[in-house]
Amino acid sequence: MTVLTETFNLDACLVNARRASRQLAAADRNGALYKIADALETHGAEIVRANAEDVKAERLKGTKEALIDRLTLTPERVEAMADAVRLVTKLPDPLNRIYEGWTLENGLRVQKVAVPFGVIGMIYESRPNVTVDAATLALKAGSAAVLRGSSNALNSNRVLVRVMREAIQSADLPKDAIQLVDSPDRELVTQLLSARGNVDLVIPRGGESLIQHVVQNAKVPTIETGTGNCHIFVDASADLQKAKNIIVNAKVQRPGVCNSAETLLVHKDVVASFLPDALGELSSQGVSLNADEHTREHFPDANVATETDWETEYLDYTLAVKVVDSVDEAIEHITIYGTQHSEAIVTSDMQNARKFQQQIDAAAVFVNASTRFTDGFAFGFGAEIGISTQKLHARGPMGLAEIVTYKYLIEGEGQIRD
Amino acid sequence: MTVLTETFNLDACLVNARRASRQLAAADRNGALYKIADALETHGAEIVRANAEDVKAERLKGTKEALIDRLTLTPERVEAMADAVRLVTKLPDPLNRIYEGWTLENGLRVQKVAVPFGVIGMIYESRPNVTVDAATLALKAGSAAVLRGSSNALNSNRVLVRVMREAIQSADLPKDAIQLVDSPDRELVTQLLSARGNVDLVIPRGGESLIQHVVQNAKVPTIETGTGNCHIFVDASADLQKAKNIIVNAKVQRPGVCNSAETLLVHKDVVASFLPDALGELSSQGVSLNADEHTREHFPDANVATETDWETEYLDYTLAVKVVDSVDEAIEHITIYGTQHSEAIVTSDMQNARKFQQQIDAAAVFVNASTRFTDGFAFGFGAEIGISTQKLHARGPMGLAEIVTYKYLIEGEGQIRD
Repeated sequence: MTVLTETFNLDACLVNARRASRQLAAADRNGALYKIADALETHGAEIVRANAEDVKAERLKGTKEALIDRLTLTPERVEAMADAVRLVTKLPDPLNRIYEGWTLENGLRVQKVAVPFGVIGMIYESRPNVTVDAATLALKAGSAAVLRGSSNALNSNRVLVRVMREAIQSADLPKDAIQLVDSPDRELVTQLLSARGNVDLVIPRGGESLIQHVVQNAKVPTIETGTGNCHIFVDASADLQKAKNIIVNAKVQRPGVCNSAETLLVHKDVVASFLPDALGELSSQGVSLNADEHTREHFPDANVATETDWETEYLDYTLAVKVVDSVDEAIEHITIYGTQHSEAIVTSDMQNARKFQQQIDAAAVFVNASTRFTDGFAFGFGAEIGISTQKLHARGPMGLAEIVTYKYLIEGEGQIRD
Repeated sequence: MTVLTETFNLDACLVNARRASRQLAAADRNGALYKIADALETHGAEIVRANAEDVKAERLKGTKEALIDRLTLTPERVEAMADAVRLVTKLPDPLNRIYEGWTLENGLRVQKVAVPFGVIGMIYESRPNVTVDAATLALKAGSAAVLRGSSNALNSNRVLVRVMREAIQSADLPKDAIQLVDSPDRELVTQLLSARGNVDLVIPRGGESLIQHVVQNAKVPTIETGTGNCHIFVDASADLQKAKNIIVNAKVQRPGVCNSAETLLVHKDVVASFLPDALGELSSQGVSLNADEHTREHFPDANVATETDWETEYLDYTLAVKVVDSVDEAIEHITIYGTQHSEAIVTSDMQNARKFQQQIDAAAVFVNASTRFTDGFAFGFGAEIGISTQKLHARGPMGLAEIVTYKYLIEGEGQIRD
């Protein structure tokens, strides 16, 4: 007899998730979320213990401290996760909203109403808080969540998912609405990405290679998230103090995230008045600068930039710098090298501001503000499941409204088509 | 020297389409559409002549008359195409609409505005009118169209695309906003489906195998359209005259389309009072019936249905018939066999109507009306690029509003993130 205990059955997982999902729209989803928050606190010590095993294994592998930090759960972080779940209960229900409604000439009443996707798959990396985030946002939006975290967080994720499943069951919701792909086997990712009809949407969250793997291989509907090669363009008419504040904020406030700035473009007219001061400040805050020749004439400490620098999402204390002749050249540069995430112009010229907003093809186009604001929380959505860099379905920060779909309800008195 | 004259360069086509697309949002798109309509009429004879070559080639292959008819263009059909384009000019502009706008506590103004996709690919079968339909709807929505029709319509499509390109150029729009993938090479479909970054959306339109090929192989965002295994459920409390009208309409008014009915489900309480009459009428209109045993007790002329019948989208004068014990059994059957397209209940019981609408997971759920109304024109959209059977981005009929995307425009006075 073949021993199959190690084999995770994804088909069964998805079928069970589908069955469970049917009960969610009409269930007390907020009640279940409160139970999850409480259970995370009650089981805090157990969660931290399981996480310590994952952290220990990573330390033995010699993993970098920054990644260890992203993996680590402390009692405070578990507390913060529980609090975040309680905040989700306060958000408006994204379901059962009527987007539009009208009556046709033949008397048919048509309503376009928000309904759940059904089964949402999440494929993500290290951070175990995404496990709770994704499951609870999907639940709030009436969908079952099938979670595929990274294998180095498997102990943490097992406990987190078990605790959440027990919690929703205690609230009379089907526990299969939250499921972990409980195996490090990468073949299961391929299976999940091919499960047409059994999963309605897969969202990747993580680094560039994870996201590219998902969008290149998915046969199911998916949303590209992530890569942000974001630019700040300082126009000739910019308020230079504000411009300095914005580039410093966009670069150093949190360099490792997708909405931080990677390239500074500066109008030739303000090179002398802006660059030495701004680059001096960035340099003093630990930013390494890769600049074109024109910039280096005014700030010789900068390294020589190559073509690669214009293309790179550093996600680090590094910034590319280039002087341009006009707003048109800035737009052209961003059109070539940008990743359609977040782009900003600093200007007092409203014609240039308008041109930049119209011609830049990106999810978020800023005038006189930091690109760091491209974020579900900063936008006031109260939650964020990811930031879309594609144009289908959702663009930019995705909150609860972006993880529901709709259907048409049509009512008549026997109408038939001519 | 290698002869490359036969090789179609898709990369160049897409790059040119992208460049052209940037000019469309601000251009006089309606003016260009009028020019297209006029040009189709002016070149009517030439179009019909080119089409006659395609038709002749198909006749020599022994193609079925129904398919020949779909391929054929007559002077009247060219006229109808031109009129359809003029109607598109009358529709509201789907661009530059502000979906939402709000001010954050820090003073940032956020606007969510409708913008074009950019480059939309269409992969479709026989009917050459789709060439004009797709190009003009994309143009109205501010996107360039890259058209891949079927090889048996290549002569027709060549002339149609040439005429449209000349027309928009005469209206000062870039002709590369409309392009034909001018080659029968199937490898180009694979290339188009893999052109991430160069095409923003690919929409398939055609039969089941075309659509499955596209959605299974696309690495670019795509929308599944099409398959409709639609059901009419006649409940115990149904007005039986209306029920008969609805099933007859949904089956025979146009059997070859995706929103026609394929299976009739009948509540056991109305078997004797409804089935002989309704099935007699369907039979007299040429519908072949494949029924379960219970139905055959009351209508012995029906054939014996097998499992396959519940799964089949006949697209023909054939109907599967089954008796069910309750609305719950009807919902269960539809959940198993339906394709999430269009489903209808005929009932006077508003609780059952509500249950059916809530529990059926489909793009359009009808109460007391024919499924044939799932259509962009019937819904009042004034146009239709296809009917989505997926949940991402659009569901059900897709009009102009469904082939645009959005971006966020954010304006401030130097705001930075804490």
